[in-house]
Amino acid sequence: MNTKIRNFGPCKIESPAAYEYYTADESKVVFKTVFETEESWKQYIGEGAEFFEQAGPRKKIYFDPKEVTAGIVTCGGLCPGINDVIRGIVMELNYRYGVKRILGFPYGYQGLVKKFDHKPMELNPENVAHIGRDGGTILASSRGNQNASDMVDRLSLYGVKMLFCIGGDGTLRGAKEIVNEIDRRGEEISVIGVPKTIDNDINYVQKTFGFSTAFSKAMEAVECAHVEAKGAPNGIGVVKLMGRHSGFIAVNAALASQNVNYCLIPEVDFDLKGKGSFLDVLKKRIQTREHAVIIVAEGAGQKFFGKTEERDASGNLKLGDIGVYLKNSIQEFFKAEKIEVNVKYIDPSYIIRSIPANPEDSIFCGFLAQNAVHAGMAGKTDLVIGMWNNVFTHLPIDIAIQERKVLQPTKSTLWRTLLASTGQPAHMVAE
Amino acid sequence: MNTKIRNFGPCKIESPAAYEYYTADESKVVFKTVFETEESWKQYIGEGAEFFEQAGPRKKIYFDPKEVTAGIVTCGGLCPGINDVIRGIVMELNYRYGVKRILGFPYGYQGLVKKFDHKPMELNPENVAHIGRDGGTILASSRGNQNASDMVDRLSLYGVKMLFCIGGDGTLRGAKEIVNEIDRRGEEISVIGVPKTIDNDINYVQKTFGFSTAFSKAMEAVECAHVEAKGAPNGIGVVKLMGRHSGFIAVNAALASQNVNYCLIPEVDFDLKGKGSFLDVLKKRIQTREHAVIIVAEGAGQKFFGKTEERDASGNLKLGDIGVYLKNSIQEFFKAEKIEVNVKYIDPSYIIRSIPANPEDSIFCGFLAQNAVHAGMAGKTDLVIGMWNNVFTHLPIDIAIQERKVLQPTKSTLWRTLLASTGQPAHMVAE
Amino acid sequence: MNTKIRNFGPCKIESPAAYEYYTADESKVVFKTVFETEESWKQYIGEGAEFFEQAGPRKKIYFDPKEVTAGIVTCGGLCPGINDVIRGIVMELNYRYGVKRILGFPYGYQGLVKKFDHKPMELNPENVAHIGRDGGTILASSRGNQNASDMVDRLSLYGVKMLFCIGGDGTLRGAKEIVNEIDRRGEEISVIGVPKTIDNDINYVQKTFGFSTAFSKAMEAVECAHVEAKGAPNGIGVVKLMGRHSGFIAVNAALASQNVNYCLIPEVDFDLKGKGSFLDVLKKRIQTREHAVIIVAEGAGQKFFGKTEERDASGNLKLGDIGVYLKNSIQEFFKAEKIEVNVKYIDPSYIIRSIPANPEDSIFCGFLAQNAVHAGMAGKTDLVIGMWNNVFTHLPIDIAIQERKVLQPTKSTLWRTLLASTGQPAHMVAE
Amino acid sequence: MNTKIRNFGPCKIESPAAYEYYTADESKVVFKTVFETEESWKQYIGEGAEFFEQAGPRKKIYFDPKEVTAGIVTCGGLCPGINDVIRGIVMELNYRYGVKRILGFPYGYQGLVKKFDHKPMELNPENVAHIGRDGGTILASSRGNQNASDMVDRLSLYGVKMLFCIGGDGTLRGAKEIVNEIDRRGEEISVIGVPKTIDNDINYVQKTFGFSTAFSKAMEAVECAHVEAKGAPNGIGVVKLMGRHSGFIAVNAALASQNVNYCLIPEVDFDLKGKGSFLDVLKKRIQTREHAVIIVAEGAGQKFFGKTEERDASGNLKLGDIGVYLKNSIQEFFKAEKIEVNVKYIDPSYIIRSIPANPEDSIFCGFLAQNAVHAGMAGKTDLVIGMWNNVFTHLPIDIAIQERKVLQPTKSTLWRTLLASTGQPAHMVAE
Repeated sequence: MNTKIRNFGPCKIESPAAYEYYTADESKVVFKTVFETEESWKQYIGEGAEFFEQAGPRKKIYFDPKEVTAGIVTCGGLCPGINDVIRGIVMELNYRYGVKRILGFPYGYQGLVKKFDHKPMELNPENVAHIGRDGGTILASSRGNQNASDMVDRLSLYGVKMLFCIGGDGTLRGAKEIVNEIDRRGEEISVIGVPKTIDNDINYVQKTFGFSTAFSKAMEAVECAHVEAKGAPNGIGVVKLMGRHSGFIAVNAALASQNVNYCLIPEVDFDLKGKGSFLDVLKKRIQTREHAVIIVAEGAGQKFFGKTEERDASGNLKLGDIGVYLKNSIQEFFKAEKIEVNVKYIDPSYIIRSIPANPEDSIFCGFLAQNAVHAGMAGKTDLVIGMWNNVFTHLPIDIAIQERKVLQPTKSTLWRTLLASTGQPAHMVAE
Repeated sequence: MNTKIRNFGPCKIESPAAYEYYTADESKVVFKTVFETEESWKQYIGEGAEFFEQAGPRKKIYFDPKEVTAGIVTCGGLCPGINDVIRGIVMELNYRYGVKRILGFPYGYQGLVKKFDHKPMELNPENVAHIGRDGGTILASSRGNQNASDMVDRLSLYGVKMLFCIGGDGTLRGAKEIVNEIDRRGEEISVIGVPKTIDNDINYVQKTFGFSTAFSKAMEAVECAHVEAKGAPNGIGVVKLMGRHSGFIAVNAALASQNVNYCLIPEVDFDLKGKGSFLDVLKKRIQTREHAVIIVAEGAGQKFFGKTEERDASGNLKLGDIGVYLKNSIQEFFKAEKIEVNVKYIDPSYIIRSIPANPEDSIFCGFLAQNAVHAGMAGKTDLVIGMWNNVFTHLPIDIAIQERKVLQPTKSTLWRTLLASTGQPAHMVAE
Repeated sequence: MNTKIRNFGPCKIESPAAYEYYTADESKVVFKTVFETEESWKQYIGEGAEFFEQAGPRKKIYFDPKEVTAGIVTCGGLCPGINDVIRGIVMELNYRYGVKRILGFPYGYQGLVKKFDHKPMELNPENVAHIGRDGGTILASSRGNQNASDMVDRLSLYGVKMLFCIGGDGTLRGAKEIVNEIDRRGEEISVIGVPKTIDNDINYVQKTFGFSTAFSKAMEAVECAHVEAKGAPNGIGVVKLMGRHSGFIAVNAALASQNVNYCLIPEVDFDLKGKGSFLDVLKKRIQTREHAVIIVAEGAGQKFFGKTEERDASGNLKLGDIGVYLKNSIQEFFKAEKIEVNVKYIDPSYIIRSIPANPEDSIFCGFLAQNAVHAGMAGKTDLVIGMWNNVFTHLPIDIAIQERKVLQPTKSTLWRTLLASTGQPAHMVAE
Repeated sequence: MNTKIRNFGPCKIESPAAYEYYTADESKVVFKTVFETEESWKQYIGEGAEFFEQAGPRKKIYFDPKEVTAGIVTCGGLCPGINDVIRGIVMELNYRYGVKRILGFPYGYQGLVKKFDHKPMELNPENVAHIGRDGGTILASSRGNQNASDMVDRLSLYGVKMLFCIGGDGTLRGAKEIVNEIDRRGEEISVIGVPKTIDNDINYVQKTFGFSTAFSKAMEAVECAHVEAKGAPNGIGVVKLMGRHSGFIAVNAALASQNVNYCLIPEVDFDLKGKGSFLDVLKKRIQTREHAVIIVAEGAGQKFFGKTEERDASGNLKLGDIGVYLKNSIQEFFKAEKIEVNVKYIDPSYIIRSIPANPEDSIFCGFLAQNAVHAGMAGKTDLVIGMWNNVFTHLPIDIAIQERKVLQPTKSTLWRTLLASTGQPAHMVAE
């Protein structure tokens, strides 16, 4: 794994940030920290170990703040905390480095393309001071990438020296194309990604902003499902939560609620028919306990839908709607079994993703933003701000997008605990 | 309007409630209090005026507390505050009147029918002390009425002297049948309704419990719709809220949010096609303001669906799903107009109705419960506890169910203010 | 009681508000609506009855909107909802009546006096659109009145035709002085009060804005006191709440919490020493139940402090700190009794009054604001916007300030219910 | 640093927990993971590195679950999440290991001493299922240690094989004495600590439960202080927050709020008088910005109070009340300077510590509890459950209590960011 970070050149300018101490440019975070035996540790060390570059303010920087115009763009679906990140970038650029011209390009990558004719917004400490109280993004967003050449044209037109791209997997792929186009032209524009995915599934990034807020809010919907399930004869509450490829939100919401009986996630296979299948297991519970609460992540059970190559504007494969499918399957199954059940289905998606960040996330966003600015000022590029072993890191974009982080059911303490909490069988596939 | 309340006979027992003062049994609340002119007032007075009987503890009661077994049943859909009402009834019966045997019949009217085999739950101050913190109902609920004879059989079997029915329109009709059956048998069992409708649409009842909680919570979903609408190019947030026959929740959520542009309710007609129709109006807004927030009450626009006589288990006419219909109509319309829009649809129903009561409602539930107990102990029957001019009242069941309270667009200050707040046209029917 | 409202003259201008219907100028609300007997009602009618003038938009108005400059001033302590009232006034003036010049005078009446040199703030729909989400007042506030002549000078200087005074008892007295000074000069400047008192104690006003938010938030502090009381040996939680002259917040917080054992309010006398006194009663509870939760309103037990004539800047008599006094008295008492107790004292004042209004209050503030504007445009003056029997009213300032609304322990259903809820003795004075 | 964990002997019993995988008993977490240079890393490795033992379920356990009686005790001040830990311990013992007898000893260490006569509470999955929704501890708590011999007597009497001590610094010292007494008697009773400190200041423990909830709630009080400060002429909001020895809560609340101008913590010296002192700096701000928000941690500025050796029941040195001292100092200073200021002082302590855990903490508590049970069942003792590099660890009690974790101003990224966020000078000592 090549974790080396690109830099436009040696940093020669004394940082005006006036911090009491700076992060050494070579500072590194060890990748692997847990070892089953001393031997495995020695072997890891012997083979050289792997490190991520530590993020933080550098004593010497590359760009002259007086000459810097910075750009910010927010892409993809909403996620709690985007405004906190915008705020943090503006505050750090302005107050610490003295960068006075900061442009917010509206509506995601559309804002970087002339034909859409979206006027950039001048950002300053006054107009971003309180935006963190609002959900969403003051810059608005859009899905999908745009032509890299068009976008670099506009960056050049506005004299942007560093671009902060707040977005997910698709956005980072777009950012990579921008990097490539900048390289092709031999220009020096830093491209710094702040990974945004409510699903918390960025590769080699310990956690992403908005995730804490998201599963905390999701828990409320789960509690409602529990109340509904208990409130009617054979009540069954079904909550669909985010998680296209991973069950992080689903599992954390289940653990926080402690009232969930089944949690279905993309990483764990399950069947709906036959002995030992999910519906078979559910039937036994209904017959004995007379209610059940189910969380299903949106990416779970995709095998029940035909293969598709359809993609949304962000380039994500279109998923079958497992929530509705599951709800219908449950109703049909119990009808066939002649057991009257009351299924209450909750899909809280927008109610979760559009709220403001909680204090935990809000602080986290502030750190991400500051480190993004430090990286940009130091002339680094082609990276995202990550976190590893609780230390903020620089991660090459390529590594961040090469694959997604998922729960590994047979190795994850999170999943182990989920099984203990729900009491659900580890396997719900038909015999 | 016959507002006379039935009573099993003269009250001869000194109340053990030990209150410092009691409500006189003849105490009454004037029905009409606002008059456009002095003449209209004099005319009203001259014709005799109308009154509701005031609720409250009576100095003399009818039933001997030592001989009373009380029953509680909760029916229909969930609504914030049911547990507070249960708690209040138990506390008042036990602590003030000394009634020690209180039975909670589970799963609504099913709990009053032998064949369902639901064991009644003994209720006491200990096991209801903290239930108000939970949404739903500890007694669980079910939809639909049961055979009145079966139910009175069970009441007799358990020796129930007063039955508290917490439920909506359908439940009160069921209660009326129970009253009639009791009369037929010549028994003396008080039947006291506590009207439960999240829609706030009980006839001659100023407000119902759970309503304040409901529109307050609904406002959160509306705020999310606003954030989503502002967060994408031509974003349109659509929120479906409760209100089968009335727009009270929709209008109050809109007023509380102050970010709503259109509020569609059952009481006000609108078209989707043609000049001056809703979609025509919406198009102009999108073209100029680039986003819109819409609330639609579930009972709005039912003319778009064919006539149906289908009813749910509670006896309510099945409604067409105006939320999904509107969402689809908007999408198709703008597609045809070749305007790209981003529609975000939110249906928060269960998330609203299953939460605990807010403090405002919680206190209100306590008063309702106490007054229900006072009415029962005084040997009154065939009534619901209402409120008029901020005074708790006794309302004959017949009056409560004869028709529904609705917003009257041309006379309502609420609707007048809604129009001012949203800026929507008073009429959105096609020319 | 003279409830007649003053008016600068006949209204001759057609209202541009474009409402579908208007409130008749003679429309009135009956004062008394509950009667113990038919005789008492007839007697009341025979003697002529009393009415309040109904608030609402008039079809004809007095001031020409094009020539109106409006002023807003917010005085006294913070209260949830002030910003909602400001917002509502601005929106109604601007959108409905077309008044374009609206000045916010900062820091209360200081803003109306030249020497303080506070520049007025131009208010418009854009800069007030979202202020309701914030607690406090965007205009800031100050305590105390200023010289009426100085204030009217400044109103004249800025050409103000109507002044909206959002404030409490002291502020309304100040408003009255402004009215008198205007009269003296023979000018026509409407002075409209929007009564602000978190204590909910304005005479003949059913409820004031912020009160619902206040007791709801207060309940949270009470719940914490309960947790603390249960968490330690002989734990005693004491919460001091607002209520200089009345127990409304204290009682409502107690009812909402349902975990309070004693609620001490200004309207009900109690002793600390001797048989049957509060501490005597508390001792018995601690010995049997091992914990207790106490709410004390700030104006309760003032007899324990020497007479004082000291007043704060708002002209309120300085109160002795009954919270701290009670806490110390409890600790000393039990020390003398050799009973170890753990007293946890909570004074949440600022945490309650500085939060944003809840949706219930927020809507209420909107109505108050609109009715204030309607009154001003109709050329009415020397009044506050009140509410009676759920109808918005015009109330002469003199009536609003002549005395305070208080709980009447021997007639109040609120207090009756409080006693039932806490189980505390009706009298805790020493024998 | 000796991180070796004691064990009563080899584990020979197959775990009945039925987990899909177990944590290897030798599994370890590297202590140091960030290195400024490759050389410093190599040197660290060359010198052998340090590790903590990883927590988690072991495949073989020491105690036979059928013979185990477990005990739980909660000591010291309240902290969000205690009930979640109790719940988690009971669930894991009962459902996973089959331990059926679990005793909750009430009122902290008092519950382990015969003379206090507190009856232990039988804990089971039913009676702990929903306790996590409540703040505080269902077992109640007390301050101070008790005689170790008395306590071990009682443990023996009840046949307790493992004792879970949920408490802070003082509690862990008490636990250590219990360990020593058990050793002295040659018994085998596991003593497992779950560190509880709302201050988050346990040595070598990355974070403690309740901390996230605490600073999140603290932020609300800070926001109120900001509203108050802006709402009055020269308004100064002062909030005292927890933090006897460390500024973690103060700093995180400040970062989350983003409206704080000064944050005073125990780790950073400051003066009140003289050029460059805090009051000097504050004066300049008030003169230019007219408002200020200040957070002060309770342990800050102790130099202003005389030396004391007085300790509370928990053995903590009694602190001078810096909040009140600061408030008074500010008022006196500005009075002397003839500048009118409005100081609003908020001390939200009990309101923060007695609320339920937020979802983030609630999940964390569940993990702590499970790992505590795993450690006990494996026959380990004399340890606390910690976390390092996001991995749960076993930490010898001695290490946990040898000193406190504090912020190191010149090395902490947290403090660096705080200075950037508040804009306060790094040094506020008099020149």
